[in-house]
Parts: sequence; structure tokens; C-alpha cells
Amino acid sequence: MNTEYAETELAEPHLRRLLGTAGLDVEYVSGEGNTLHHRAGNGSLIPVLDFAGGYGSLILGHNHPEIVARARELLDARSPVHAQFSSHPYANRLAAELNRIIHRETGVEEPYYATFANSGAEAIEAAVKHAELDRGARLSALLAETRASAEETRAAVLAGRATVAAPVHERLGVPRPARDEDGIDLLIAEASRHNAEVAGRPPVLLALQGGFHGKLMGSVQLTHNEGYRAPFATLGVRTRFVPMDRPDVLKEVLEQESGTLYELRHRAGRVELAEREHPAYCAFLLEPVQGEGGIRPLSRKFAEDIQEFGRQADCPLVVDEVQSGMGRTGALLASAALGLRGDYYALAKSLGGGLAKASVMLVREARYRPEFELVHSSTFAKDSFSCHIALKVLELLEADGGRLYRQAAERGEALAAMLRRVAAAFPDVVKEVRGRGLMQGFEFHDQSGARSPRLAEAARSGLFGYVVAGHLLHAHAIRTFPTASAVHTLRFEPSVLLTDDEIARLERALTDVCRIVRDQAAERLAVPA
Amino acid sequence: MNTEYAETELAEPHLRRLLGTAGLDVEYVSGEGNTLHHRAGNGSLIPVLDFAGGYGSLILGHNHPEIVARARELLDARSPVHAQFSSHPYANRLAAELNRIIHRETGVEEPYYATFANSGAEAIEAAVKHAELDRGARLSALLAETRASAEETRAAVLAGRATVAAPVHERLGVPRPARDEDGIDLLIAEASRHNAEVAGRPPVLLALQGGFHGKLMGSVQLTHNEGYRAPFATLGVRTRFVPMDRPDVLKEVLEQESGTLYELRHRAGRVELAEREHPAYCAFLLEPVQGEGGIRPLSRKFAEDIQEFGRQADCPLVVDEVQSGMGRTGALLASAALGLRGDYYALAKSLGGGLAKASVMLVREARYRPEFELVHSSTFAKDSFSCHIALKVLELLEADGGRLYRQAAERGEALAAMLRRVAAAFPDVVKEVRGRGLMQGFEFHDQSGARSPRLAEAARSGLFGYVVAGHLLHAHAIRTFPTASAVHTLRFEPSVLLTDDEIARLERALTDVCRIVRDQAAERLAVPA
Repeated sequence: MNTEYAETELAEPHLRRLLGTAGLDVEYVSGEGNTLHHRAGNGSLIPVLDFAGGYGSLILGHNHPEIVARARELLDARSPVHAQFSSHPYANRLAAELNRIIHRETGVEEPYYATFANSGAEAIEAAVKHAELDRGARLSALLAETRASAEETRAAVLAGRATVAAPVHERLGVPRPARDEDGIDLLIAEASRHNAEVAGRPPVLLALQGGFHGKLMGSVQLTHNEGYRAPFATLGVRTRFVPMDRPDVLKEVLEQESGTLYELRHRAGRVELAEREHPAYCAFLLEPVQGEGGIRPLSRKFAEDIQEFGRQADCPLVVDEVQSGMGRTGALLASAALGLRGDYYALAKSLGGGLAKASVMLVREARYRPEFELVHSSTFAKDSFSCHIALKVLELLEADGGRLYRQAAERGEALAAMLRRVAAAFPDVVKEVRGRGLMQGFEFHDQSGARSPRLAEAARSGLFGYVVAGHLLHAHAIRTFPTASAVHTLRFEPSVLLTDDEIARLERALTDVCRIVRDQAAERLAVPA
Repeated sequence: MNTEYAETELAEPHLRRLLGTAGLDVEYVSGEGNTLHHRAGNGSLIPVLDFAGGYGSLILGHNHPEIVARARELLDARSPVHAQFSSHPYANRLAAELNRIIHRETGVEEPYYATFANSGAEAIEAAVKHAELDRGARLSALLAETRASAEETRAAVLAGRATVAAPVHERLGVPRPARDEDGIDLLIAEASRHNAEVAGRPPVLLALQGGFHGKLMGSVQLTHNEGYRAPFATLGVRTRFVPMDRPDVLKEVLEQESGTLYELRHRAGRVELAEREHPAYCAFLLEPVQGEGGIRPLSRKFAEDIQEFGRQADCPLVVDEVQSGMGRTGALLASAALGLRGDYYALAKSLGGGLAKASVMLVREARYRPEFELVHSSTFAKDSFSCHIALKVLELLEADGGRLYRQAAERGEALAAMLRRVAAAFPDVVKEVRGRGLMQGFEFHDQSGARSPRLAEAARSGLFGYVVAGHLLHAHAIRTFPTASAVHTLRFEPSVLLTDDEIARLERALTDVCRIVRDQAAERLAVPA
């Protein structure tokens, strides 16, 4: 390497500096199971217990031996990673296996068609694109029907086979002519104008407050966190964000966003103005357990409300299982336990087994549009490497009658029980423990008004969780982070390999942190301010 | 696997069927160099000479031994693939190495900051997001300045330190009051109203006709092909597409899209209305050689025109080197040979060495906004695996004083010479040969009016190139495809390993195809209709 650049940081130097202020800018050199290693000054390896877990990507831990072995086999076999536009039986097998599991977990038999992608955000965008293609097709079909009806009605009126009653003119705000045949064109024009106006409205995109669905140009519009979204609001479509557990707001959305298209038709010699439901809704995005929003499980009741809303509004539900899925809550889909059924599912993170970049969008047959396959693709997606790795992940999860799912649920409960114990011991420090399975959040009371100037300052600048994370790393060799949008909540998303010893280590570490916060003793933090 | 699904295709069955009609639905089981293998009915391996090259991802060929060896080393070392929010020296080294090469090729010394992503489309969207963050920041600063100026001017007028001349009222369309101090608030309100209107306009996004920049929700808006874009136009921001080689249109854009903000200020006791350039332009996207648009090189002259436009409009240029870059045209950047300098570069495809999913967005220091690092990220990006593989790719390209770049240029010229020879032999069949280096397009004359019903029908339905591809595969064991948006153009994007024998094989195959088209002898096609 040229020495010219050796000292200039060119890959996110600002982030690196910020991480440095919390002591988080260590270099990890290897990983296995729940452990990452960095190097001490003397060259020895320091093991760190990893509860960040690749932001939920490591349900099987770092470098799981069977995943690594599968990767080696693929390299040995000279797997054709780049074979776009050919037969991809491995992708099809992966789609079939996902279907088999989803059918078992949800109790439905309808097929889900798979589109593969390279990241969670890409899978979400594929789902929204598909949903909009579908909405557009439904809208076009409906407009064509109203046009055909109008033409037919016009012919009937001109032939004297149908007459127009006064209410039709009134409703369209068109003066009634002396003879129906003189006015029919105006009626049709007015109905068309109304239909064009309604059809031209931007698609209604819905998501939950606190939701996170990615940071690409489109998906960032669906992510609630304003810090991530607002600077880019000019680049995409506005999303309407619905607060949690507010069925009244769903009702309000339905009233405000729905609309009808006019259809002029004739029945028994009379022209009538029918109203057809406008397909206003592109998609409703939701996470069964919000990850970046603070590890917040969706309630069963609100899941039902949203499902019912979807039915009433004919609005497809895109269930974002990118972080909650792949076994983390004791099943492939966290949503299945809520009785929730997605029109779409998005899976990523652990689907790549901690090595590959794999994601998939699944859409139920009833909404599936085959033509989508001709207009959406990605050079890197559907490749043999990531598909085979993902197949191996599913094989491991499904082995022994789903032993690892049960293990995730049991280990998650052991982790949660410990977190609740710590919380109970420090009620003035810990606000809440939340989560499902191996996706747990540990929320501190807001320290913005803390007596300790350092803790208060950290809280006010949104960095409290990072300060705690720095202490955990340096005093306890434990790695975790706050959630992105709920900065007083620490995330714990370890692998299914989590041991009782590891839980005990975390308990000691969190107890230490809670004592420091209780005592407002910032001077005991391992990383100096 | 459950037999229930063994027979249902769930991963893009429609596409599979369409590929099948052209005989393209073969299953590749391994790849090396320029060769992919599929299996014959008797189980033996059939080698296929691959000119599709992973749509430009295989500058080093399939499974290059040194790339595979590097991947094995990373697996053996238990590389920490998932170590988000830590120090990533490999990412920094990769950024530094890209800088070193870019500086050498462009002759500039300004640093480019790197943001990593997982696909070409993601890198493009990162660039556009960054450009819009930058535009927003410039706009906010400008608005703040105009507000401060207005406040200051107001104070000066109220204190009798400045007077307002009649033209100011006239230009703002505000009646002139008896006393300046009674009218200044109205002047300020009117200027603010104007500024709010101008500042609220959607960002101007520009791209070239024929350009391809991805298929995600945002990037698809920048892709010219209407089939890909139109169904999703409701999900993003409208792009204005500029035709190639039309400086007059650039001038028109400048006139139509520019605008000014008003600044009320006072100089020497007089209030004046200054106009400040509104930062209307988010970005201009362009490929040095359009890939999906039909392997169309940008002319040096138009590249200069666009550069000049960027300067005049203060519009950053996003140079999309996803397909043209990474050595394919004899340099890391195809744009360097055009004298073009990007404010942003996007690299992907071959950056992943045929194994990894790697992409990067680079932004020059003058436009760089460090705060971008805090609002943009991706779980899978900046990982040790793809960064180390990309470093290996650069190492191979740079070895021996850039031997592989020279080889790409020389092999590309040999390939192009052969293509031109075939074209010259069949002037009624071949319309044009275009390209740079190992990125060559071979365009047939439109066959929509062909005598052969099969050729004419294939041409009219946009499938002519796929019919030819099917014949090349089955009669000559050669793999290529038409470009996505120029369906009469075959693409040839082999690796630098291309041999004279392989070129000769392609020559025989293309000669056969040209004879079939010349003779309108569809019955000689290897794949029956």
C-alpha cells in the first residue's frame, strides 16, 4: 500500500472517530460462536462475548463450522456464482424449503413465490415494487372496466335503451340536458375526470411508528426514525406512520385514504352511477418485533387489527422478518406466533448464515404477478453461493425436528429471565425489559436529567447507550449496542449457542453498569470521557 | 426436501419458462475462467464459453484461483464477517487503494471518501442519497443566510441606516409604502415566500437516455428503460433524461431547472435585492460506456459538455462505473480515458471478484459530508469478506505494473477486430460493432420486417437476441445475451483471460448466426420454435 494514504482514513472516518470516543473502535480479527477476538497491545487475542450478533445476522454464531464447511465445498466445486439467466435449481429448492416451513408455521397452504436479493433493504424494496406493480395492474383493470361500462352505457343511451335519472347528474354535478343523449358525453367526461383524479393520487404506504425497514432511497422512506429519513424525504414517496396499538388510527386511515372510482352503467333501462373501491393502498410494512425501534414486540391484538385493516382496505401486509425471523424467536417467522399472515415476507440477515449476503422477498400466490420477474432483477442475487449457504442454514435450523428453534426459545427465556432479574434489582435504573426469544431489549430510564454531568450529557446527545457499550466492552469484554432509534435500550441478539456461563457473565456486567448508573459514578466507567 | 414442492417452481417460474423457450434454462454446475459447465443427459460435463461474464462481474473469470485461495484463507482465519460498528482497517485499506489508483488515472489528488454497499444499485443509491444530503445542507445554509441578511436589513431600515429604492418593491411586486420602515416586513415576507417556493421544488435528477443505474425503488427511477421504470414511477422522484450528444438539451435543462433565491441586503445605505443561485440539482448520473443500453460509449465531446454543465449548474456528476469499471476497458475507470472527472464514482460487479458481493460509492472531498456516515449504513456492507476479496482483485489488477489492464485493452481490441471483421462480411445483417476494451456490443439490423416469420416474430416481441443466444448456446456452446434495453445488440464481456482460440470460436459461431440471418434460414437454428 502507498504510504501516502496510510494515515488518511477514507472509509467513514467520522464514524470511526465517534466510535473511538466511546472506546468502540477496536479491530476484530476473528470470530467463532458468540465470540469475537481483538488483539491486545502485546499481540495476544482478547475474546469478546458478542451480544450484537451482527445486528441479528448470527443466529448460528460467527463462522459456524458447518456453514464454513459448506462454503469450502462450494469453493472446491467451483460453484458457478455468476450464472444469471439460467436454471437455478438451488434457488428453487430454497424457495420450496421456505414454503414448507412457512406453511407449517402459519397453517396455510398457499404458495409464496420468491424473489432473491442481496440485503434486507433490497428485499423490502422488491416487496414494495411488487406490491405497486400489483396495485397498478388492479387499478388499470378497474379503469378499463369503467371505460368499457361508460362506452356501453353511452351506446345504450344513444340507442334509447336506457335513460338517465336526475340523481346521476346531481351526484356528478353536471346540468341535466333536455334529452339524455345530449348529456351522456358530459356525464362520462365528468366521471372520467373524477376517476383520473383519484387514480392519480400517490400510492398510500403505511408503516408503524418506530419501524425500521432499511436505508436505501425507497426503503428509508418507510423507516420511521426521522434522523435517517428526513434528509432524503425529497427522494421518495411519503409514508404514513401509524402509532402502535391504536386501532382508532387505522380506522381514521381507512376513512381518509380510501376512495372510489365512478362507473356509469345501466341496469333495466336506467343509467346508474356505481362506486368501485379505488386500490389506494400499496402496502403496510410491519415488524413482528421492532428491532431498531427498541426491541418492541407487536401485540397480538394490534396484529389482528392490522390484519383486519389489510382485509378491509385490500392493503397487502409486508411482514418484515429481516431481524426477527430465521429462528430468533423460536420459529422461522416471529409473526406466526401472533397469528399474523403476511401477503409478503422479507427475510435476510441470518439467512446468509453469517457468511453470505442473502435476502428474499416472498409473495403469496393470490397477489403474485409473474410479469414482475421480467422487470426486476439483480446481478448479484439468486447466486449459487448465497442460495446454498441459506439452504444449509435452513437445514441446521430444521434438523432434529427443529431442535434449534426450541433452543432459541429456551435460551431466549433464560436470557430474558436474567435481564428481568437485573431490572428488578435496579428499578430506578432499568425502565423495561422487552423482547421475544433471542431478541431482547434492556431499556434504561432516561438519564438526561442525571446528577452525573457525564451521564446526563451522554443521554442528551443520544450517546448514553454507546457510553454503556464502551464500558461493557472494556470492563467486561462484552459487545452490544443500543438500538438505533431507541438510544436508551441495549440490544441482546446472541446466537442459539448462548450458554448459562455467558448469561452469567452478562448478568455481572449489567449489574456493574446498573450500580454505576444508580450511584451516578461515571468515574467508574472504563472508558474515560 | 418435501416432495410436495419438488414440482412447483417457486423462484421466478415465469422467467424460467421464458428462458426455456429459447433453450437458455440450462443448469450450470461449475465455472472456471471463461468457462461454465452444464451436464449432458449422460452426466458428462459440457463446457460453455461464457461471454456474458456475469453481466460484467468477471473481469478475472469464474473462480479465479487466487480469489478462491483468498476466500479459503478468510474462512480458515475465521474472518469476522459481522463486526459492524468497529474498526475496519481492511475497508480503509480498500478505500486508500482505490484512491491511489483513481488519482493515478485521473491525475487529481483530491481524496475520495468511501461508503461500502452490497450491490451496484445500492452504491448508486448511496451516491444519490449523499448528493441530496449535500444539496439539502447547501440549501439550508443559503436559506439561513438570506434570513440573516433580511433580519439585518430590517434592523438597518428601522434604524434609518438604509433606504429602499423603488426597483426592489417592483421586483418583488410589493406596493411601496410612504415610509420604508412600514414596508420592510412585507418585502421580507414576499422574498421569503419566493424562497420557500423555490426551495420546495423537488430535486432535479438527471440521467442519460439509454442509461441503466439499477432496479431498486430509487435507482429504477434513474434507469431509462421504460419497461423497468414506468410501473414504479409512483414510488420515487422523476428523473429528467437527456439524449446523448445533445449539448443544446443541456443548455435547455440549465435554463429550465435553475432558479434563484432572493436575498434582501443593504450596501452603502441602500437596500438591494440580490439573487443567489438555488441548488436545484441533486445529481447527474452517467455511464462512461452504457451497458444495458447497448454497449454505447459516451463520446469525449459530450463528456466534456456534461462536465461543463456540472460546473455551471453546480450539479455533481455520479459516474456509474459498475459495469465499465474494474479494468474492463483497460483502466480502473473507463471515464478517465474520456477526461471525465466524477464528483462520485460507483463501482461493483468485478469488485467482488466473481465471488463476493461488494460495491462502493466514492465521493470527492469537496462535496463530502461527514454526517452522512451517521445516517447511512447496511448490516451486510463493509464486511471483512468482501473487502478482503476486493483488495485481492485490486492487487491482481495492479500487479506487474498493471499488466492486466494492458491485457484487457489488448484482448478487447482483438475481440473488437474480430467482431468488426464479421460485421464487414455481413453488412446487411450487422448494423454496428461498439465498445471499449472487454465490453463489446454487436448490433444486428432490426429483423421486425424479416422474411422469416420466426425471426420477424422474435424481433417484434423483443426476443430476437434471446433466440440468437439460444442458438449460440446449443449449436456452439457459447453463452451471451442481448443487452437489456437494446435487444438487437449482443453483449460480449469476457474476462482478461480471453484467448485467441476463444475469439476464433466466437467468430465461427457469429459467422454461422449471420449466415442464418442473411439466408433467413430460421430452420437452421439449433433450438426449435
